[in-house]
Amino acid sequence: MRTIWLARDGRTVEIIDQTQLPHELVIARLKTVADAACAISTMQVRGAPLIGATACYGVALAVAEDPSDAGLEAAISQLAATRPTAVNLRWALSQMRRALREAPERRRLAAALHQAGDIAEADVAINRAIGEHGASVIAEAWRRKGDERPLNVLTHCNAGWLATVDHGTALAPVYRAYDDGVPIHVWVDETRPRNQGASLTAWELGQHGVTHTVIVDNAGGHLMTQGLVDLCIVGTDRTTAGGDVANKIGTYLKALAARDNDVPFYVALPSPTIDWQIESGAEIPIERRHEREVTHIEGWTEEGRRVAVRLTPQGSPAANYAFDVTPARLVTALITERGICPASREGLLALFPERAG
Amino acid sequence: MRTIWLARDGRTVEIIDQTQLPHELVIARLKTVADAACAISTMQVRGAPLIGATACYGVALAVAEDPSDAGLEAAISQLAATRPTAVNLRWALSQMRRALREAPERRRLAAALHQAGDIAEADVAINRAIGEHGASVIAEAWRRKGDERPLNVLTHCNAGWLATVDHGTALAPVYRAYDDGVPIHVWVDETRPRNQGASLTAWELGQHGVTHTVIVDNAGGHLMTQGLVDLCIVGTDRTTAGGDVANKIGTYLKALAARDNDVPFYVALPSPTIDWQIESGAEIPIERRHEREVTHIEGWTEEGRRVAVRLTPQGSPAANYAFDVTPARLVTALITERGICPASREGLLALFPERAG
Repeated sequence: MRTIWLARDGRTVEIIDQTQLPHELVIARLKTVADAACAISTMQVRGAPLIGATACYGVALAVAEDPSDAGLEAAISQLAATRPTAVNLRWALSQMRRALREAPERRRLAAALHQAGDIAEADVAINRAIGEHGASVIAEAWRRKGDERPLNVLTHCNAGWLATVDHGTALAPVYRAYDDGVPIHVWVDETRPRNQGASLTAWELGQHGVTHTVIVDNAGGHLMTQGLVDLCIVGTDRTTAGGDVANKIGTYLKALAARDNDVPFYVALPSPTIDWQIESGAEIPIERRHEREVTHIEGWTEEGRRVAVRLTPQGSPAANYAFDVTPARLVTALITERGICPASREGLLALFPERAG
Repeated sequence: MRTIWLARDGRTVEIIDQTQLPHELVIARLKTVADAACAISTMQVRGAPLIGATACYGVALAVAEDPSDAGLEAAISQLAATRPTAVNLRWALSQMRRALREAPERRRLAAALHQAGDIAEADVAINRAIGEHGASVIAEAWRRKGDERPLNVLTHCNAGWLATVDHGTALAPVYRAYDDGVPIHVWVDETRPRNQGASLTAWELGQHGVTHTVIVDNAGGHLMTQGLVDLCIVGTDRTTAGGDVANKIGTYLKALAARDNDVPFYVALPSPTIDWQIESGAEIPIERRHEREVTHIEGWTEEGRRVAVRLTPQGSPAANYAFDVTPARLVTALITERGICPASREGLLALFPERAG
């Protein structure tokens, strides 16, 4: 199963509605570009690579209705406006524009479906490669640990297969190492406000059979001081050319704790997540979302009803910053589809020399 | 209004049931030592100083039923076992033992009520003094900021008047500075898993009229990188003689972020919170609570019903560490009832010379 695919009718797109997990596996159908934009905004789909793939299919849905240049540009604008931080969205849309502007209008739907499919397949291949490179880091850490106890990995948010088309970024190495026989236990940050860790990462790991424990976001520092974390691995929504990493709010705090306790801190990323245009993380726009995600939380009652409950006093405002930036100095290494490198311009250029100059 | 008081009947004790806030202000009645122990365990009362005061009244309730030495010791054991981390509990119980063992059995109830009342009054006076000393730190920080914008203070968990008999520890300086006319805005960490920030600190600040914004625990680091936090101030459940500070889980992460961004990080504490017996925070027992506090959360529906909802997949275990230790090296200064000092043995002994040697 993947997170997004072209439906059998060849005209609509199906996704896993991630707002319903872990309670229910619901498939939603996207019929229009507005459906696709809404799925991204409301986070039925989320995760930088999956946002990119969904945007590609959204362009295809738009082109099916209006294949003109104006229609194409309107769709790209609408999709680009959904979420500001992940750079994959912009990258995916520019790939679509390049592929479609050359094609005559009557061929644009076929070209769009083809290109969207290619980008989705490329994401799968990239993440498989990240899994291979990252698994060697995990296996080596376990060997260094030198006993039979499981390797304790801490992750924040969800960078598993649900965040991508398949395999995941930060979790791809975990799955691959687990499949190779390395005993692994994952500490899962719940990741307030939207709890993608508690609801998505825990569900994914459970489905795959990987031992895990859910913790509140406050707990990771204490665990590290107690020697209960062997390494951290997270995903990213945008990595600058200098190696700074924007990821889900709270990642920076875990990176600080990792540094303070000599715990390696890895970031796994597909290269479309690299923003070669900017050097410093300070230039990355940080999305602010609705305060209701902080003042309220959704969960399931004993009877299986999904309910939103209020956590804060009436009249107390809330702020909701969705991402933070972890500076390159706190990152042990970046894990990409081409291998592992220091979080620096030199490190990235050694793997992606075509970006030099 | 205080958090605990002797009822008009002179035989029972009343408390604010803090598990009902911020939705409802409910007064609960403690009739027996078991009621008092249960109120502490279930966190109807919480906060190191208030736990201590409640334990004192719990001893009085026990002595009313059985004033014998055996009855006294059984009550002390029962109350001491409720929560392991806050040292005030042990301190308060040893004060009660000292006062009561000297008294004949027929006078023990009167002596217990007297001693409990004294300890509660002493807590109020101590916290008032902490407020005065801490307010000068806040006023000075605002002057240094050098403009009319409010001083941005970040706090974690609840160390307000609800955590004490009155005034609070970390929030006493905030209230005092606010009352003195310093413009203050408080960033309130929600403080998972039990959300004492979102439910208690936000409510307290709102009642007092202090401008505040609730944030998820993940957000504070980002705010500091953006220059949006001028100082941090938190309470503590136990401070070692060397200046290490145990406080609600997640405090350590904020202290790391404060250090990384040159934001002053203050800890406010009444001297009964100091454990002179131990030097290092590594010796402090860290309470582990039930995993249900992580897997579920309580909140209020639109109709005002209090509901617990599940956040995690069935079958995903959770771990619930209630406190962490912030090492003295990350603490700018300690704010005590006798003044402000470095977080070190020398600093503490300069204020409490009677503890030397």
